[in-house]
Amino acid sequence: MSEALRVGIAGLGTVGASVARVLADKAAELTRQCGRPIVVSGVSARERARDRGVDLSAAQWFDDPVELAGWDGIDVFVELIGGDEGAALDCVKTALEAGRHVVTANKALLAKHGLALADIAEQKGVLLNYEAAVAGGIPVIKTMREAMAGNTVSRVFGILNGTCNYILTRMEAEGISFEECLADAQRLGYAEADPTFDIEGHDTAHKLAILTSLAFGSRIAADDIYMEGISNITQADIRAAAELGYRIKLLGVAQRTESGIEQRVHPTMVPTASVIAQVHGVTNAVAVETDILGELLLSGPGAGGNATASAVVGDVADIAKSRPGFQHGPVFGRPVKELSPYKRAQMRSHEGGYFIRLTVHDRTGVFAAIARRMADNDISLESIVQHANGASSEVQKTVILVTHETTEAAVRKAVDGITSDGHLLDKPQVIRIERAA
Amino acid sequence: MSEALRVGIAGLGTVGASVARVLADKAAELTRQCGRPIVVSGVSARERARDRGVDLSAAQWFDDPVELAGWDGIDVFVELIGGDEGAALDCVKTALEAGRHVVTANKALLAKHGLALADIAEQKGVLLNYEAAVAGGIPVIKTMREAMAGNTVSRVFGILNGTCNYILTRMEAEGISFEECLADAQRLGYAEADPTFDIEGHDTAHKLAILTSLAFGSRIAADDIYMEGISNITQADIRAAAELGYRIKLLGVAQRTESGIEQRVHPTMVPTASVIAQVHGVTNAVAVETDILGELLLSGPGAGGNATASAVVGDVADIAKSRPGFQHGPVFGRPVKELSPYKRAQMRSHEGGYFIRLTVHDRTGVFAAIARRMADNDISLESIVQHANGASSEVQKTVILVTHETTEAAVRKAVDGITSDGHLLDKPQVIRIERAA
Repeated sequence: MSEALRVGIAGLGTVGASVARVLADKAAELTRQCGRPIVVSGVSARERARDRGVDLSAAQWFDDPVELAGWDGIDVFVELIGGDEGAALDCVKTALEAGRHVVTANKALLAKHGLALADIAEQKGVLLNYEAAVAGGIPVIKTMREAMAGNTVSRVFGILNGTCNYILTRMEAEGISFEECLADAQRLGYAEADPTFDIEGHDTAHKLAILTSLAFGSRIAADDIYMEGISNITQADIRAAAELGYRIKLLGVAQRTESGIEQRVHPTMVPTASVIAQVHGVTNAVAVETDILGELLLSGPGAGGNATASAVVGDVADIAKSRPGFQHGPVFGRPVKELSPYKRAQMRSHEGGYFIRLTVHDRTGVFAAIARRMADNDISLESIVQHANGASSEVQKTVILVTHETTEAAVRKAVDGITSDGHLLDKPQVIRIERAA
Repeated sequence: MSEALRVGIAGLGTVGASVARVLADKAAELTRQCGRPIVVSGVSARERARDRGVDLSAAQWFDDPVELAGWDGIDVFVELIGGDEGAALDCVKTALEAGRHVVTANKALLAKHGLALADIAEQKGVLLNYEAAVAGGIPVIKTMREAMAGNTVSRVFGILNGTCNYILTRMEAEGISFEECLADAQRLGYAEADPTFDIEGHDTAHKLAILTSLAFGSRIAADDIYMEGISNITQADIRAAAELGYRIKLLGVAQRTESGIEQRVHPTMVPTASVIAQVHGVTNAVAVETDILGELLLSGPGAGGNATASAVVGDVADIAKSRPGFQHGPVFGRPVKELSPYKRAQMRSHEGGYFIRLTVHDRTGVFAAIARRMADNDISLESIVQHANGASSEVQKTVILVTHETTEAAVRKAVDGITSDGHLLDKPQVIRIERAA
């Protein structure tokens, strides 16, 4: 039996406590799998007294997580503090510089400082593992970083935020409004008191930035992401989507195009019969398309203490299986210095199908004017649906257009033209359609 | 830059040639990812002259694959010969005993000799990687062996045979018979001239045996698998399934129960709205349920030269990233000597819902007799559908029963009873229902 792997955990919230419990409860099995014991030798958290369902009395307590990170009583530092600056950043830097392996679930930190941290890890010859940072328990980092070696990725996309997927799923299943679903999600603990970070797409964007780097061997560019949230999705959109054979999901999509790499987060129509359309509630999913493997889809719990802890424990176990002197693959698939600069594809060059929902005056000539604007911008239509609008059907109606593949620029120009024609009674709704198997 | 990793490939059929091409085409990127070049230094195949779309002139040619396996000009031996005895077994044994890492796609070999081979690998401190042996390009081995460390698995199930899924998908989509679909699959190269191995479930069983060992830390028991193929699935079953909200898939299922571990391969009703029900054509999928992570599902190409090559290359790249002295995790998750004996759960103890389709005389009292047999065996019914049978509706009709959770023993007894009552005009059809998210 080799020496035990000594782990320091900073942050004992839901995930941290769950990691400590799993390492304790599954100690015997983990020892069998890793060939040596994994022990928690140090911990740090804000509150010392709280009952976390696990006996941590054998671990040394640190009030200051940075002190734990630099302590020579650990081999691995597990960062579960959160936040993209401050204590989390200081800890991880300190641990890496002290030659400790690091495991983190912190997507915000990686999206912002991932390259600088990876650089330190690679110089020090230690591992920086972050499976839990993207899509919770789904092993997408391991899959892209290890299993897909040799594959050239053309597109990666996914449902990366459980809060948004929970809201969209309930809106569809129960016919209730975005606002009502959000309030419920907050009550159930699926959404924060300030939900902006989730529902406007920031959380998805952080995760997407990491996936993009792994997919394309490019430098992380978390600020270069086109972003639209789900707060303006209405029942009218969801019903129209269903009628046309689509379901609305908030996707993060990164795609290689002729003009660069697209990184976009927006509500998306996916075919109802596709696998990703069946991913409901707080479940996450990631699809990767490559030249050799083809299309792979992974779905599973994207959040929650246990699912996230599973990914953290997997990362720690990988370190336990390795031995001093072992050099693992690079943090973001390629060594940091060999990551290519990120070249952003302009959103207006995006090519795809579009769903356009217009609320218009119900009078002669309106539809002809809309059709003219589409034709003027070389947009051909796959389907057209017109609805009378309930009680007010005398004066307004809804026109839904689904386009064949066209460009974002053409759609924006056409919709601007329709708006300037003065026929619209409400803000036009435009939702991108994504191919999905 | 470290020294190159030298690879010997035995078997240059579709997969072998694809592996050689990927290693050549992606040499620069693989070097970046692995920190050293991967070169094919030796090859062996039946036919030397064939054009395989890749220049192998720099590699040494071996007429005898066993000689290649023992050659000291390789660090890794890639076995793509196939078969569970003969050359494949001799090669892999020779390579491991000579201290070479081995990568294989050979599920039959592993199902039969996996433990003996793993034992040699562990003694010699070399890797035996076999991602391509189960579900082609889907990284299920890596996920279960590495990412799920610390998880206790309760059930693993999947669509593990592309041929069967292709046939079932087309039967449903086009309303054609099993025989017609099979003939088409053979013409398109998705099924062998002798399709027994695929359609009767043997191929699925080999893969399931490997997954069971990884899931439960038990010794491989490929001969202890309950097996039913898809050749008796009819349009009547497929239509009835659809009507009741199910789709029929050939699943391999391994499940921990109170009396042991169930390993079963059979046509299965899965809810139409589940993710696995959307897995169409030759695509494979594997779902794993655990105590910590929850339910994870992976879907992707389960066969084909490139998808399989992707898994082989991933395995080789993992070896390239490791360095001498590195000790990886055990071949089947735990060291061979610590795998527990396989304890088979009896099929008659299986608990679940059942679909039962009966063709009966259309006369008074028949249905009452059927209902009585169900009640006598404590089987409660979730739904009952009766159909007149087309032109012959005067004399026969179809009765479809869907049971609530019951036992295999109860269902068999009830169906035997109904059969002995003399009301049946055709063999009763019984299909198990599987929970799936």
